[in-house]
Amino acid sequence: MYLYFVSQSKPAPATMPSELETAMESLITVFHRYASKDGKGTLNRRELRELMENELSTFLKSQKDPAAVDKIMKDLDANGDGQVDFEEFVSLVVGLSIACEQCYQLHMKKQTKK
Amino acid sequence: MYLYFVSQSKPAPATMPSELETAMESLITVFHRYASKDGKGTLNRRELRELMENELSTFLKSQKDPAAVDKIMKDLDANGDGQVDFEEFVSLVVGLSIACEQCYQLHMKKQTKK
Repeated sequence: MYLYFVSQSKPAPATMPSELETAMESLITVFHRYASKDGKGTLNRRELRELMENELSTFLKSQKDPAAVDKIMKDLDANGDGQVDFEEFVSLVVGLSIACEQCYQLHMKKQTKK
Repeated sequence: MYLYFVSQSKPAPATMPSELETAMESLITVFHRYASKDGKGTLNRRELRELMENELSTFLKSQKDPAAVDKIMKDLDANGDGQVDFEEFVSLVVGLSIACEQCYQLHMKKQTKK
């Protein structure tokens, strides 16, 4: 599915999506793979748990706290409606990516020192 | 918050990264493909332009304003140091993803009405 950016007047010529466009498209399709099963388009607690167990299993396993998903649900559900919408979900992805990028930088610095 | 592909104390068994992990990894590697050329690990104006022209060309072409990159640079450079770090860059990705997800929802609703 080619990602049409906002404010498109006429469809752009079909070109291969870039790596960044593909990554952004994945954020949307992965979210809706779990959020749209019940047609709502948001994640309830069970759907969030399922998404994390399938898509962030390594991270989830590294969490010692068995209530990690419940705490993350509480953190993400900014408006307290018991659902996580795409905007709330993206904040999880951002937090994890920023944490990873800092480790990526450390890793690269160690590489250059060798 | 701790994620596997950060420096794990003991390496987890090698499993294929999920689609979401691959997307998050792409955000980091794409950013550093342009940000680390000069060894700084941040994007100056020229590097941001180069990233956008290569990775977000459709979006950039849809912007009528020739000074779009300069305005985006100003928006992203939250601390005004003339550089865009990963955290500032991710806010661009988030904004575009949220806008695209809204288009995706409209697209899906039209599909279900057919």
